[in-house]
Amino acid sequence: MRVLGIDPGLTRCGLGVVEGTVGRPPTLVAVGVARTPAELDPARRLVQIERAVQDWLAEHRPEVVTIERVFAQHNVQTVMGTAQAAGVAMLVAARAGLPVVLHTPSEVKAAITGSGRADKRQVGEMVTRILRLPEAPRPADAADALALAICHLWRGGAAGRYADAVAGASRPTNGYAAAVAAHARGGRKA
Amino acid sequence: MRVLGIDPGLTRCGLGVVEGTVGRPPTLVAVGVARTPAELDPARRLVQIERAVQDWLAEHRPEVVTIERVFAQHNVQTVMGTAQAAGVAMLVAARAGLPVVLHTPSEVKAAITGSGRADKRQVGEMVTRILRLPEAPRPADAADALALAICHLWRGGAAGRYADAVAGASRPTNGYAAAVAAHARGGRKA
Repeated sequence: MRVLGIDPGLTRCGLGVVEGTVGRPPTLVAVGVARTPAELDPARRLVQIERAVQDWLAEHRPEVVTIERVFAQHNVQTVMGTAQAAGVAMLVAARAGLPVVLHTPSEVKAAITGSGRADKRQVGEMVTRILRLPEAPRPADAADALALAICHLWRGGAAGRYADAVAGASRPTNGYAAAVAAHARGGRKA
Repeated sequence: MRVLGIDPGLTRCGLGVVEGTVGRPPTLVAVGVARTPAELDPARRLVQIERAVQDWLAEHRPEVVTIERVFAQHNVQTVMGTAQAAGVAMLVAARAGLPVVLHTPSEVKAAITGSGRADKRQVGEMVTRILRLPEAPRPADAADALALAICHLWRGGAAGRYADAVAGASRPTNGYAAAVAAHARGGRKA
């Protein structure tokens, strides 16, 4: 299962692709950040984000896209831009026929570090260790995108794929239905 | 100047097109609501909103798109869906090369009713009167979209077009540049 994780944002949008199969540690496929200039009109920044996500889908062909769920807690204007960027990322993935799954920051932290209250540094260190990288991916948005993808593999994807294998199902050809089903199964007991 | 106003939302997205020229009251071109089913995956609801906005642009050929600015005040999960829908509407308009202008709810209320704290009913009544409609457009999202479009005409568009006329400029052929310039001029003294 190949997963694209997206940490949405207007200024920096983290993108990370991870691949995993049952019984093997996940591996890094690609990681990066899409940046858009602050002086550009917000609507035009969203067009650049659309293009970046489209490019990543075309180049890395993930089977699932997972995006960080945005909460309106602190800085209101930043959060609105982040939610708009998340909406565009969701749109692009859904338009490509891929399942889109949102995970909360605390779900990701708990899956990666064992604690829902881990800080950015701890998440970065665990991502580095899990993917056996020479150093932590920078900026933090890139590491967060990988953490999201790993979280998705561990919470749903791998368990679902395993359930498919046990049930005698072959590699899913209908990516959307199969991955959603896998997620639903994995979600119950991940 | 023809303006498409969008009151964004996942469940109901209000769409209203209004046309205005200097010295004449604005006229209704089209009004409606795009609905997406609550049981559908949010990412797929955004794809339906994208299609609806694209259809409205193709059918009614506005020169400017104005969208209600979303604030994170109350119901957090609804607001996030609204912000995602707004992001998709902004994206579609920008991709079509159109200027995208956000107006706050109180700017719209003040422009239409004279008070930034007017309620939905008052806004609906004034929209009905301004556009000389037989009855108030329903649901409220449709009336709000028209109010946004009228607000934009009055705050920026008409003044800009007037300035163009005074300066001896002909009907703008470069819709984007002309409308942005018009908005910038109109914005100073609307």
